[in-house]
Amino acid sequence: MAINIAILGFGTVGSGVAETLDVNKDVIAKRVGEEILVKHILDIRDFPESRFAGLVTHNAEDVFTDKDIKIAVETIGGAKIAYEFTKRALSSGISVVTSNKELVSTKGPELIKIAQENGCCYLFEAAVGGGIPIIRPLYKCLAANKITRIAGIVNGTTNYILSQMKDEGLDFDTALKQAQANGFAEANPSADIDGIDAQRKLSILSTIANDGEYIAPDLISAEGISKISVADMEFAASIGCEIKLIALYECGEDKPVCYVAPTMVDKSNLLYNVKDVFNAVMVDGNSLGRAMFYGQGAGTLPTASAVCGDVLEAAMGNPSESRAWTSESVDITPYDEIVADIVIRVDNAANVTVKGYACVYLSEEAILINGIKHKDIEAVMTETGAKSWMHYLK
Amino acid sequence: MAINIAILGFGTVGSGVAETLDVNKDVIAKRVGEEILVKHILDIRDFPESRFAGLVTHNAEDVFTDKDIKIAVETIGGAKIAYEFTKRALSSGISVVTSNKELVSTKGPELIKIAQENGCCYLFEAAVGGGIPIIRPLYKCLAANKITRIAGIVNGTTNYILSQMKDEGLDFDTALKQAQANGFAEANPSADIDGIDAQRKLSILSTIANDGEYIAPDLISAEGISKISVADMEFAASIGCEIKLIALYECGEDKPVCYVAPTMVDKSNLLYNVKDVFNAVMVDGNSLGRAMFYGQGAGTLPTASAVCGDVLEAAMGNPSESRAWTSESVDITPYDEIVADIVIRVDNAANVTVKGYACVYLSEEAILINGIKHKDIEAVMTETGAKSWMHYLK
Repeated sequence: MAINIAILGFGTVGSGVAETLDVNKDVIAKRVGEEILVKHILDIRDFPESRFAGLVTHNAEDVFTDKDIKIAVETIGGAKIAYEFTKRALSSGISVVTSNKELVSTKGPELIKIAQENGCCYLFEAAVGGGIPIIRPLYKCLAANKITRIAGIVNGTTNYILSQMKDEGLDFDTALKQAQANGFAEANPSADIDGIDAQRKLSILSTIANDGEYIAPDLISAEGISKISVADMEFAASIGCEIKLIALYECGEDKPVCYVAPTMVDKSNLLYNVKDVFNAVMVDGNSLGRAMFYGQGAGTLPTASAVCGDVLEAAMGNPSESRAWTSESVDITPYDEIVADIVIRVDNAANVTVKGYACVYLSEEAILINGIKHKDIEAVMTETGAKSWMHYLK
Repeated sequence: MAINIAILGFGTVGSGVAETLDVNKDVIAKRVGEEILVKHILDIRDFPESRFAGLVTHNAEDVFTDKDIKIAVETIGGAKIAYEFTKRALSSGISVVTSNKELVSTKGPELIKIAQENGCCYLFEAAVGGGIPIIRPLYKCLAANKITRIAGIVNGTTNYILSQMKDEGLDFDTALKQAQANGFAEANPSADIDGIDAQRKLSILSTIANDGEYIAPDLISAEGISKISVADMEFAASIGCEIKLIALYECGEDKPVCYVAPTMVDKSNLLYNVKDVFNAVMVDGNSLGRAMFYGQGAGTLPTASAVCGDVLEAAMGNPSESRAWTSESVDITPYDEIVADIVIRVDNAANVTVKGYACVYLSEEAILINGIKHKDIEAVMTETGAKSWMHYLK
């Protein structure tokens, strides 16, 4: 007996899944108790060079009318055809495993519900942090905690660009071009550099941390990295920081706080040392204290590793793996009301005072204000004659 | 309806479990779908000051004859009475959750088998890395990988002592006394400082990485930290390293390689920055690449966090959570046959050559030899007139 699966979309991740399931088939069969076989690969393209070429079909009916298929791997991406295929599979009781953060973050509530109604799973460990285990540890290992904060570097492209700017002294445009040349950024890099990818991943992490009370991505304020200058990088270094694109969730006193923003990360923080395309997610729980999950946040095989872990889980059939999300998004703290720590760049820090706030002197040019409301920042900037500010994470 | 559990042994971890289940009872009930209630606490002591005093019993029959009890938390420690109680619980179909690395590492094969035969679980996420999720990610998220290497700092006491020696320039005895005064080391510190605790944890990690082919702790060579001198710490710093107690598993070409040893960790390695009582486990998988899990490796609440995560898992009843271990230990590579990277301290590194090995010059006093068999090290030491050597991890 074998468990038959289909791969929908044979791009970078989809082909890595076929490869991983094949290379590790012996250990996998031992662990699951049965072989896992790729029976169909659905794509509009042909792959004559691939050793899996014989499995390719262009006809979705070949997959959906095949009663042998227990699991579909959705590695199409986007929220159009991937959405239709996922709904169709789950409605037929076929478990779906995916790395598609856009679809999970926008349609997760509906798709998880369909899975539950049909006794199958919708699993998406690979949608955040690539190969890094984070979704399942949050759901399972930290299940007895109230998650108070998550701070993560969840986009490898921007982290690579920022690392290059820092280490090589490149400006943003040059670093982006280099990232594109090295295959670490797309031809159209907007989803990465504008923080949209991080926003989607934060939506998923926040919803889980917020106990399934869904937080839609479009509610989350996201600022990208395209305005970061060489001078900003040097300024950060002068106060012992590196600039990272941080996705932040806090449970908040009233409503959850979520945003994506370039942030001065102090060298005492573990995220400071996360370089290049690596990702890391730092989680605070009220019993756990602090834990960090680190690894390759993207790439064919690391992402395939996470997808395949979910395939094995679905093969062993644990329906408790997907927990319900509310169908409507809950409210989060409006951007203006968020209370944050910020660094302000000024001409002469020693002379600066700010009405109503204690200022921490960081350097001749930098003061830190702990716990200021976003809507008060502009007035403080005017008051101090400051040029720029940025979020700060110690 | 509620799920009733018993806590066996109300020490540091046991009381943290009661506390965590109580403080987070609302989120837990929501996640599980039912309340989890501590019905009995079994201990030979009374705890008149505790708000759980009314639950304490000295009579094991109160627990084992109570048909309401679905889960027992074993936080007694040791492998005597804890072993008897665990066998008895599992034989009656009561799932057991534990942080007891001694028991899991010595009796795991038998206890997991009893659990499987009786349709219950034996879960031990808390036995390695305290609050850090590591057992379940290895079993689940990395299930499609062949695990090629694990390198971990898995003992908080020794890491704290080494950090103090490094940062404060203390000698070993003074740092140990300080750790004892601060509650980070036991009055009898042998299990920690001699590497026995790390050896047990490595036995568990290695067995899982080795696909359930059991590796008994007493096969694993373990060297502690009591011989580390201030001069060793300074020598390490001079070549950009810190000395850490590393537990190492490699899948090996022929047989697995496992040992615990003080190791020069290069500053480029993520484990270099793991300070004080923190733990971290670095895992290499053939699809995953490298991931790292970091957090508080001990302490009441972090360990309770992991125990409670397992309690919730057992409450939701996933029998696939425990995977079988072989009843007999497999062979591992004998210590003498292990091939390792080592740093040798010499008088004048520039003049040193070693027959049969390429030497990498690290400093005036230090050479690195990559890939030398343990049994050849003594001859090399004699040949070069060297004073000392240590394992090296880049």
